[in-house]
Amino acid sequence: MPDTMRALAILRVGEVGLVERDIPRAGPGEAVVRTTASLICTSDVHTVAGALPVPDGRLLGHESVGIVHEVGEGVTTCKVGDRVAVNAVTPDGTCDACQQGYTSQCGGPLGGYRFTIQKDGNLAEYFHVNDADYNLAPIPEGLADEVAVYACDMLSTGFIGAENANIPIGGTAAVFAQGAVGLSATMGAKLCGAGLIIAVEGIPGRAALAKQFGADIVIDPADGNVAEQIMDITHGGVDGAIEALGHPDTWEGCLRSTKAGGTISNLGYHGVEGPTLSIPLDAFGLGMSGKKIVTDLCPGGRERMSRLMRLLDTNKVDPTPMTTHRFAIGDVEAAFETMSSKSDGVVKPLITYP
Amino acid sequence: MPDTMRALAILRVGEVGLVERDIPRAGPGEAVVRTTASLICTSDVHTVAGALPVPDGRLLGHESVGIVHEVGEGVTTCKVGDRVAVNAVTPDGTCDACQQGYTSQCGGPLGGYRFTIQKDGNLAEYFHVNDADYNLAPIPEGLADEVAVYACDMLSTGFIGAENANIPIGGTAAVFAQGAVGLSATMGAKLCGAGLIIAVEGIPGRAALAKQFGADIVIDPADGNVAEQIMDITHGGVDGAIEALGHPDTWEGCLRSTKAGGTISNLGYHGVEGPTLSIPLDAFGLGMSGKKIVTDLCPGGRERMSRLMRLLDTNKVDPTPMTTHRFAIGDVEAAFETMSSKSDGVVKPLITYP
Amino acid sequence: MPDTMRALAILRVGEVGLVERDIPRAGPGEAVVRTTASLICTSDVHTVAGALPVPDGRLLGHESVGIVHEVGEGVTTCKVGDRVAVNAVTPDGTCDACQQGYTSQCGGPLGGYRFTIQKDGNLAEYFHVNDADYNLAPIPEGLADEVAVYACDMLSTGFIGAENANIPIGGTAAVFAQGAVGLSATMGAKLCGAGLIIAVEGIPGRAALAKQFGADIVIDPADGNVAEQIMDITHGGVDGAIEALGHPDTWEGCLRSTKAGGTISNLGYHGVEGPTLSIPLDAFGLGMSGKKIVTDLCPGGRERMSRLMRLLDTNKVDPTPMTTHRFAIGDVEAAFETMSSKSDGVVKPLITYP
Amino acid sequence: MPDTMRALAILRVGEVGLVERDIPRAGPGEAVVRTTASLICTSDVHTVAGALPVPDGRLLGHESVGIVHEVGEGVTTCKVGDRVAVNAVTPDGTCDACQQGYTSQCGGPLGGYRFTIQKDGNLAEYFHVNDADYNLAPIPEGLADEVAVYACDMLSTGFIGAENANIPIGGTAAVFAQGAVGLSATMGAKLCGAGLIIAVEGIPGRAALAKQFGADIVIDPADGNVAEQIMDITHGGVDGAIEALGHPDTWEGCLRSTKAGGTISNLGYHGVEGPTLSIPLDAFGLGMSGKKIVTDLCPGGRERMSRLMRLLDTNKVDPTPMTTHRFAIGDVEAAFETMSSKSDGVVKPLITYP
Repeated sequence: MPDTMRALAILRVGEVGLVERDIPRAGPGEAVVRTTASLICTSDVHTVAGALPVPDGRLLGHESVGIVHEVGEGVTTCKVGDRVAVNAVTPDGTCDACQQGYTSQCGGPLGGYRFTIQKDGNLAEYFHVNDADYNLAPIPEGLADEVAVYACDMLSTGFIGAENANIPIGGTAAVFAQGAVGLSATMGAKLCGAGLIIAVEGIPGRAALAKQFGADIVIDPADGNVAEQIMDITHGGVDGAIEALGHPDTWEGCLRSTKAGGTISNLGYHGVEGPTLSIPLDAFGLGMSGKKIVTDLCPGGRERMSRLMRLLDTNKVDPTPMTTHRFAIGDVEAAFETMSSKSDGVVKPLITYP
Repeated sequence: MPDTMRALAILRVGEVGLVERDIPRAGPGEAVVRTTASLICTSDVHTVAGALPVPDGRLLGHESVGIVHEVGEGVTTCKVGDRVAVNAVTPDGTCDACQQGYTSQCGGPLGGYRFTIQKDGNLAEYFHVNDADYNLAPIPEGLADEVAVYACDMLSTGFIGAENANIPIGGTAAVFAQGAVGLSATMGAKLCGAGLIIAVEGIPGRAALAKQFGADIVIDPADGNVAEQIMDITHGGVDGAIEALGHPDTWEGCLRSTKAGGTISNLGYHGVEGPTLSIPLDAFGLGMSGKKIVTDLCPGGRERMSRLMRLLDTNKVDPTPMTTHRFAIGDVEAAFETMSSKSDGVVKPLITYP
Repeated sequence: MPDTMRALAILRVGEVGLVERDIPRAGPGEAVVRTTASLICTSDVHTVAGALPVPDGRLLGHESVGIVHEVGEGVTTCKVGDRVAVNAVTPDGTCDACQQGYTSQCGGPLGGYRFTIQKDGNLAEYFHVNDADYNLAPIPEGLADEVAVYACDMLSTGFIGAENANIPIGGTAAVFAQGAVGLSATMGAKLCGAGLIIAVEGIPGRAALAKQFGADIVIDPADGNVAEQIMDITHGGVDGAIEALGHPDTWEGCLRSTKAGGTISNLGYHGVEGPTLSIPLDAFGLGMSGKKIVTDLCPGGRERMSRLMRLLDTNKVDPTPMTTHRFAIGDVEAAFETMSSKSDGVVKPLITYP
Repeated sequence: MPDTMRALAILRVGEVGLVERDIPRAGPGEAVVRTTASLICTSDVHTVAGALPVPDGRLLGHESVGIVHEVGEGVTTCKVGDRVAVNAVTPDGTCDACQQGYTSQCGGPLGGYRFTIQKDGNLAEYFHVNDADYNLAPIPEGLADEVAVYACDMLSTGFIGAENANIPIGGTAAVFAQGAVGLSATMGAKLCGAGLIIAVEGIPGRAALAKQFGADIVIDPADGNVAEQIMDITHGGVDGAIEALGHPDTWEGCLRSTKAGGTISNLGYHGVEGPTLSIPLDAFGLGMSGKKIVTDLCPGGRERMSRLMRLLDTNKVDPTPMTTHRFAIGDVEAAFETMSSKSDGVVKPLITYP
């Protein structure tokens, strides 16, 4: 049994590196997982760029699955050797927000987001999990690790975007931007019974994936005013518009393409566009058009993870076409560079472990 | 039977006058009501100031009750002589928005708001009602007209603000501004089971009414940062904050005083503050704190009106302390001036008819 | 233009016949449709058998689409020549139940169900539609009549069964019986995001259709206790169980195979099993296990019909494999006999018109 | 510090006695509370009568508050000396049911109900609390223990009955039986915004309390058919009917007095009326009238307890008129006898501690 492990760390703002670290230990109620598959996330890129303040040396990553390596005292729902998935968000399950069902807001705004932000992340050969009974979800027997790993963030985030969009059965949806989260939201809109799904995306490879995942129409923003096109196609706006980029233009597009009484469901991280976000009042009915704005961060917990993996296990969704690249953990720096530069048509780089 | 009636008209932007007009007639499915009580609304003041484009001569008013004077062909749910209330919003009941339950968005954004905006209002001795079977609600036998008239807009608007705020039973609410709509939202928060209601208001008379209507605490904005006080009192923010003014400061206060996962329920008309409304991203968790923004305009329809009047009839709420002034229809110009200047501690001026 | 039409009538309890009748006329707010496609429903069979009291000579049928033949005064949303679908339930849109969104309970329990029960049905070359603006939904341009006709009852009923079952995304569902309504509920469960769908059916052809429509597992009741098998497969019960037969055994199966906190969604007509329906208290947690029972009848209205047809138009669902038989209207007696005897593997007989 | 304590035990089916026991100890994540106030519940009476199988010697009680006496390793949200309330239901907070929000169904049907059923109850000078961080709620500073103790079961159970009844603002409610749970449901219906509350009760003292707690009308079952009276008063049935007795007559009354589309919310324990509960099909629209049946058991958890105590702390509700009797713990046998025999107009006997 080794004492140390390889992992990807933020060396300082703007720089990452493969490092060697001690394998973490499990205290009471906690667990340590030996990683078998990870995905790199655009959030990792944002964090390295300095979006949120983290100490130098902090490990990256929040999308990993693996095998239970150690369990702390009092853990009852899993044992060493179990294959498990862990959400990017790891709530404690007891705070007021968790008891109200807002697991990603555990202990305060965005407080459930612990990997990298509050402790080491899991782009590592081993990783630590708090509140193991609340957070460790067994991976169904026939489901491959590299498929299950999509449940950690992409499906949980993308699907909550669709769930929050209040799309009635057969209703209309627009999904702005088709990166991995947007593509997952497109899948989610289909799962939520949307009758017409309009994806907004200019990159041909992503547009093609959007169609494969359920989009009926893909609008390229280069082809003119997106919101006007959506208003025309839908005769007055969609039931639900999902913002999956975090940009003022897509945000405004959502507000302008939603019908009176419709919902704007935000998934995008709006941390780079200045201190405020603008609502155009004409598109908002001066605050009285019945429009709703709903926001969320990847909801966590074992119960939700089990549901997401069930959808993978029964082939209701297949996100693996998003795995455009594969790298061994030893090559994770190159993987990060690919994700960071958005080069080579990358959507999600999968990291494998020996 | 007279042929003409007295009514309050917008003579031109900024100027109103008592005018004489022909009594309207009822076409198929329509009705005409002889008015017995009306209230003047701050929206009337906004409209006269030019907030929304209406032709010169258009009659004002949208809060009136009375006695059915004429029914058109095909009207089945009421007859001449019935005492009835009519919501400020008069949906057709058949458009897609109505079928989805968004009556105030009938036919398009804010489209259910017909009085004054799309046709003559009802600060008049007689008024016309479209889609009478959908809109005319009988006033319960023991309920006085001057009480029932509060259901037309104040209760429907104020209560939907509270209903939309997603306050769990025993949860916490803040209501920003205690004009007639805010006071009604305070009543509504109590009716929706809030455990702690914080009202924000600087005018002593309104603060006193807020307490009478259910507020546990009233914060005067002159006494320091309101949102910080609310965050302290509630240890992290309210479940639901209701904006009842339509001002950037109260809007921002709502966003800053709501907990992660909480709801901002907007009632205010944001038509005078420029083309956009700003969301402070720090208070919004960069778009991921689970906060929701819900907006609405007075929901209409007979069924809702009946429920609102039931609450009046069984004394579950008593809005009449808001009736600070009374004027006969002949003196409606003075009433409007009082409302317009917000003088003499006015909250709602009641208009009576001979 | 002919004056008379052919139609299928109940001659007396237990006997049907092709009859000739005057073509109906449209009064104010009404319409007459020339039929292009119909489906026969098991409800028609029940009605002929005397399930509900109807006068001799009453026309059968409630699943038809066609072309607007006449519109009455005041109809504004469609015109002669439009291709339209009409739900089996034709609410007035103004009663309290309709204003609360319970269109099938228009005016009282089951009151929205007018065809055959309250007036002539639409297994006829022409048929009458009350409240045309509320009820007539245009058929999308590329959608064939014989596909659109599934929206009238099968999809509206089957899907509401799934919508009412409160299945969380990735949750588990069981659909008891796979007749046309059950098969539609299976499609609906998939549309509502179920992660595992268990169908219960003993007839091989229907079991195969269930798999085609989204069932992951089909249990044959002949192979042992169904509820026990579902409890085993799901480790404690499904999130939602849908009763699509109307039989004490499937009803009990639903109650026994639902988890604590789960929902039993009833679609079945329980009119032939005596005056009461039994809840086994051990499976109901003595009334405290958080189980919910939800019931419904095909919800109507143009807005819902448009959403259902959108799902057909964008190929999100394809119910046409249920069309096992086709008959011209002149042969409708043979079609009815096939449906009545459930012979020849019939699921839905389609009626075509010259 | 004493080693032993006094408590009320089930000596054998049908017999209780004051016993002396060792004070329990707190393991990891657990706590022990020194009791300051308790209420006796009708459920205790049922349990003693043999309703559920418990071993001889098991302590009774599940409605107690007190002061933290000991905390186990890892407990972070409270410390020795804190005044705390604990719900009758003490979920673990991590099982699938808890993560879905069904705390009373923790680990399986009714599984959150641990006191007396799965371990010693808390009619004792000290009691043990599992999962202390999830379950211990601090009592607000100014709130007396003998008021706070109503949150443990009466308010949580009665209010969830009203919350589950889906009463729209200003809607109509009926509450069948006005024992302590029914009276609490009446309070709850008022808190949920009901416009008309009809209580059903034949005992004059309870009828008077019902009026005091918000009932507009009290119907004595001795005065004729209750459901018919409710149908007359409401012109077709209530929005929500709450069963608060657990008897076939009140159950049937709920089904017969609810409108199409309305909700029957069951709180009653139906353990003594045979193996099944009957639904009259005529009142149930043959399973298609849109009626819903919702069931529940006292929901637990700190967050809900805090909301319930907030309502007490701000005087939104005052349940203390239900405290008809007071006994010291030394006289708890007499208290139990009073509750058991329902003598002397008892509603709730309060137990005090030295």
